[in-house]
Amino acid sequence: MGITDVVLSPGSRCAPLTISFARHPRIKVRTVPDERAAAFIGLGLAQSQRRAVALVCTSGTAGLNYAPAVAEAYFQQIPLVVFTADRPPEWIDQLDGQTIRQADLYGAHAKGTFTFPADTTHADAKWHSARIVSEAINLAQQFPAGPVQVNVPLREPFYPKAGEELTFEAVRVIQETATKPMLPGPELVALRHALRQTPRVLVVAGQQPHSDALLLALRQFTGAYQIPVVGDVISNLHQPVGANYDLRTAPLGKQDVFMAVPEPGLKEALRPDLLITFGQSLISKALKLYLREAQPAQHWHVQAAGPVADTFKSLTRIIRLDPTTFFELLVATDYSLFGGLTSAEDTAAAKGTADSHNDAETPDTGSIPVANTSRLTWPTSGWALTEKDAATKTAYRTPWYKAESWAKEFLTDFLARPDQPFNEFTAFQHALRHLTDGTALHLANSMAVRYANILGMPENRSVEVFANRGTSGIDGCNSTAVGAALAQPERPVVLMTGDVAFFYDRNAFWQNYPTPNLRVILFNNHAGGIFRLIDGPRQQPELEEFFETHQPLTAENTCRDFNLRYFTAGTFAELKLALSAFFAPVSGAALLEITTDSATNAAFFEEYRKAVKTAFI
Amino acid sequence: MGITDVVLSPGSRCAPLTISFARHPRIKVRTVPDERAAAFIGLGLAQSQRRAVALVCTSGTAGLNYAPAVAEAYFQQIPLVVFTADRPPEWIDQLDGQTIRQADLYGAHAKGTFTFPADTTHADAKWHSARIVSEAINLAQQFPAGPVQVNVPLREPFYPKAGEELTFEAVRVIQETATKPMLPGPELVALRHALRQTPRVLVVAGQQPHSDALLLALRQFTGAYQIPVVGDVISNLHQPVGANYDLRTAPLGKQDVFMAVPEPGLKEALRPDLLITFGQSLISKALKLYLREAQPAQHWHVQAAGPVADTFKSLTRIIRLDPTTFFELLVATDYSLFGGLTSAEDTAAAKGTADSHNDAETPDTGSIPVANTSRLTWPTSGWALTEKDAATKTAYRTPWYKAESWAKEFLTDFLARPDQPFNEFTAFQHALRHLTDGTALHLANSMAVRYANILGMPENRSVEVFANRGTSGIDGCNSTAVGAALAQPERPVVLMTGDVAFFYDRNAFWQNYPTPNLRVILFNNHAGGIFRLIDGPRQQPELEEFFETHQPLTAENTCRDFNLRYFTAGTFAELKLALSAFFAPVSGAALLEITTDSATNAAFFEEYRKAVKTAFI
Repeated sequence: MGITDVVLSPGSRCAPLTISFARHPRIKVRTVPDERAAAFIGLGLAQSQRRAVALVCTSGTAGLNYAPAVAEAYFQQIPLVVFTADRPPEWIDQLDGQTIRQADLYGAHAKGTFTFPADTTHADAKWHSARIVSEAINLAQQFPAGPVQVNVPLREPFYPKAGEELTFEAVRVIQETATKPMLPGPELVALRHALRQTPRVLVVAGQQPHSDALLLALRQFTGAYQIPVVGDVISNLHQPVGANYDLRTAPLGKQDVFMAVPEPGLKEALRPDLLITFGQSLISKALKLYLREAQPAQHWHVQAAGPVADTFKSLTRIIRLDPTTFFELLVATDYSLFGGLTSAEDTAAAKGTADSHNDAETPDTGSIPVANTSRLTWPTSGWALTEKDAATKTAYRTPWYKAESWAKEFLTDFLARPDQPFNEFTAFQHALRHLTDGTALHLANSMAVRYANILGMPENRSVEVFANRGTSGIDGCNSTAVGAALAQPERPVVLMTGDVAFFYDRNAFWQNYPTPNLRVILFNNHAGGIFRLIDGPRQQPELEEFFETHQPLTAENTCRDFNLRYFTAGTFAELKLALSAFFAPVSGAALLEITTDSATNAAFFEEYRKAVKTAFI
Repeated sequence: MGITDVVLSPGSRCAPLTISFARHPRIKVRTVPDERAAAFIGLGLAQSQRRAVALVCTSGTAGLNYAPAVAEAYFQQIPLVVFTADRPPEWIDQLDGQTIRQADLYGAHAKGTFTFPADTTHADAKWHSARIVSEAINLAQQFPAGPVQVNVPLREPFYPKAGEELTFEAVRVIQETATKPMLPGPELVALRHALRQTPRVLVVAGQQPHSDALLLALRQFTGAYQIPVVGDVISNLHQPVGANYDLRTAPLGKQDVFMAVPEPGLKEALRPDLLITFGQSLISKALKLYLREAQPAQHWHVQAAGPVADTFKSLTRIIRLDPTTFFELLVATDYSLFGGLTSAEDTAAAKGTADSHNDAETPDTGSIPVANTSRLTWPTSGWALTEKDAATKTAYRTPWYKAESWAKEFLTDFLARPDQPFNEFTAFQHALRHLTDGTALHLANSMAVRYANILGMPENRSVEVFANRGTSGIDGCNSTAVGAALAQPERPVVLMTGDVAFFYDRNAFWQNYPTPNLRVILFNNHAGGIFRLIDGPRQQPELEEFFETHQPLTAENTCRDFNLRYFTAGTFAELKLALSAFFAPVSGAALLEITTDSATNAAFFEEYRKAVKTAFI
């Protein structure tokens, strides 16, 4: 069924699963003692490999330790097939050890739950077992992907006799051919028409994995319709597309900065009438709040299947397409691809519905059919627009691009301020600049992912961004990065994290599989510094004990325990030296601990916020 | 409602709960960053204080990290009131951060789940909120106690304005008066009669907290009926009862040793016709398997309420009494206490049902009414039995006491073998001998609790034994002990643990509350050594990588990180010195790491098992 990787945790009840997977010639098995870490490592593997990973644990609370990762997988739509070994049903609640009620263990956070027959002597039970595996893997991988549980009641004996050979029988599997929805021609015409006709159209991307095809389609779309596209770092729109890094069609990413400027004219200028979204969650609270207030007359969300959130309280249409197909169709000229509609029909239909409008579809000669393999060229701007349409589109897009440019300059200037104290915001930017091309960057919750979203990725480098924003927990950030490093041994995997998330999940490293390609940058302010950065808690007397929760650890002992090469920096000068050494092409996992003071960080970040709040673009 | 302790974990959504609890004048609040550890610390507090403890966490996966402790609390019957902060219902599944589906988060492992109204402006909603708190705490504490969830949707603002005073309003609470079931007189007579009449009666205790009243009642019962009582270390029957440590009525505890002797005559001699059980789970696999095979004609289980397990496949009667009342009633002579039945009626009733029996109830002058406060005296043996009954009872009880004596001597001799290699089994006994009177001993799963059950507690010392045998997980053993140490700062709290359980739950120590009374004895064999001790895995090629899971850590860096005074021992001579220093009355948490070799341990333990298997009692 395509599964290649299994993460298991030691146990006795699960021994038949452990032994079967370990002896299977085509399965790579790794064992991780802490099930919480094991499940997030599995999630990191599945996220990187883009296919389902299996988890195996013993009976009892082992499976409950998977629950945080299972919930993250559910909301981040990552396929996990969770095998929980169990006692047979007659032994539940009989006071035997490591026995809980494992049926439907993950409740609302699994896509499905299956129970193996306890007895497989009957031929129908064998059929049932094999079918369950097919069904479970198919369900996990169906869009939107997610976790499924397969509960496996097992009776003794758990172990083959000494010297007994295990044989692997081929079983019939039920493969599922994935299809994708397509748009009927008339619907496409209506959408194109609305896009041309509406002066103020904005595209906002939520979290999603990197996709070259999507990036190209978006560039083509922006080129054709002159519609700005905005994305957070976790929407992975920031990468260059092949050799063509054309700023005129590049998505915008500095919304965390310019949206915080309280300039009423700017806010009005940016207000969309039609909002188009795709992908999962947003980080930028400023953008979220803005869009909730802006109340565009129309909000289309593009998602092939599954429940759709009304994130901005403005949703009016759900378009059941995958985003790449959606944007490809909007610029496609190979009409045979969508129901045989001809260019003439498209134009006629557009005219028929365009009462006060006088546009015409005039595909230019450089246009790209959907299935064209030479994807790295695209039409120049203005492709489908009349001059008048182009003018209104330009009028709307100009302030967006201006705000983006302003934000970049503002940040560069602000972070270069002389005489600033050593602080994690500036240090974060320095660290980001050292990321190399091709890096898989894992951003921990809570401040790391926010700093990164303000600062953005280094330009003209391909850095793919991952973050556990399905549930935004701090409980498995290390482990997810470890899973990613294991999945892609040839690729640099960098984790940027705060101290609370880092120490929370130290058991990520408590396993025996080397990750020479892993680099951890730990911003240690000895507290949950986020609480000093947000309004509310910092005014409370409980700040230090109950919100920040001061913690005195440094990572030195952890590095000693787990053989991570250990670097430190506590000043800008040290940081400069440390970053060079840390990113030097030396094999072996390493950790750079950047130590800052929580109060200093808060003061500097407050200066930044004040500067934004008094700015004028 | 009697709750005094709250364990919370930092978060923003839960800030209103955090601030309210922190500012409450009569609530002791502690904050622990890792929710998994926080929940087990709460469990340790509740277990020690014998009243409900509240947990508070933020929204998202925070609450899922509680799940292992919640399941343990459910099966160990420990009252926890779990407040999970949540977004209001309209924001669920809207792609906001730290939002999952929190309703009924613990499924089959909570006694109940409640949801606060999102809006409490209406008077009925205020009534509802207050009522929920009463209902939740009452439900958690009702026998059998357990965890309940109170989901609390919260809208912004989360924080009082700077300088805003919080006031605490008294709300009406609904107190629940606990009652206990009593036995109707005729039923009691029938039970007494059956006990007198049945020659082979055995009492087996499962896990339960220490109770002086129960210990006394059991001693009286054994004295009166000459019926042997068997208990594992976790049933806490081993303590001396006041000044009277009479071996003739002491419960037995060496079943792990003598039940492993394959002597058919002994097994037949020990076979009960009537088995009486109470309490929760057993550790002794040998005893469990024996009783399942023995198939007593009758098995009574004594439990006041809740579902009852058929642990030995022989259950025939459930007696809805708490065990102390049950054993007190069986020896009571104050007939006014149970329905006005008189001694004469009891005797008559007994005679009426006793066809072939000629016994008589002759309460002696030293008998103890149930409510007597001078509980530390009891009737001498033979109290309620005829001479003939006493003789058959003695015939049955003698081999039990003989087996117990034999096992003690056998163990003493075996563990004193000269020239033995340094091994954890013997080292464990040495450590146990150093426990001081009044110690709360926490035994980690998996080998620690098994070794302790074989070896037993030091005699004539009061050592109360705790172990997470509700689910037998290794996931919160440190944290539970930390909670116990926090709850009873004047009492020595000792944790004996293996390395996998210890390193799994290191975050127990990642908080800022000193536990100067905590002593951790870590048996480090750098692996899950249990897998080398049990048949099955040790014959498999996967033993080292996938079952034992070799792990190279020592506790030195952990002790450095968390300011635990660190002691080590790797030989018997070192152990002797280390134990004296370690148990010296010096304030400050300490850890003694006893390093052994897994293969050596296995070889020595195998010798022990062989010696038992070739023994003859």
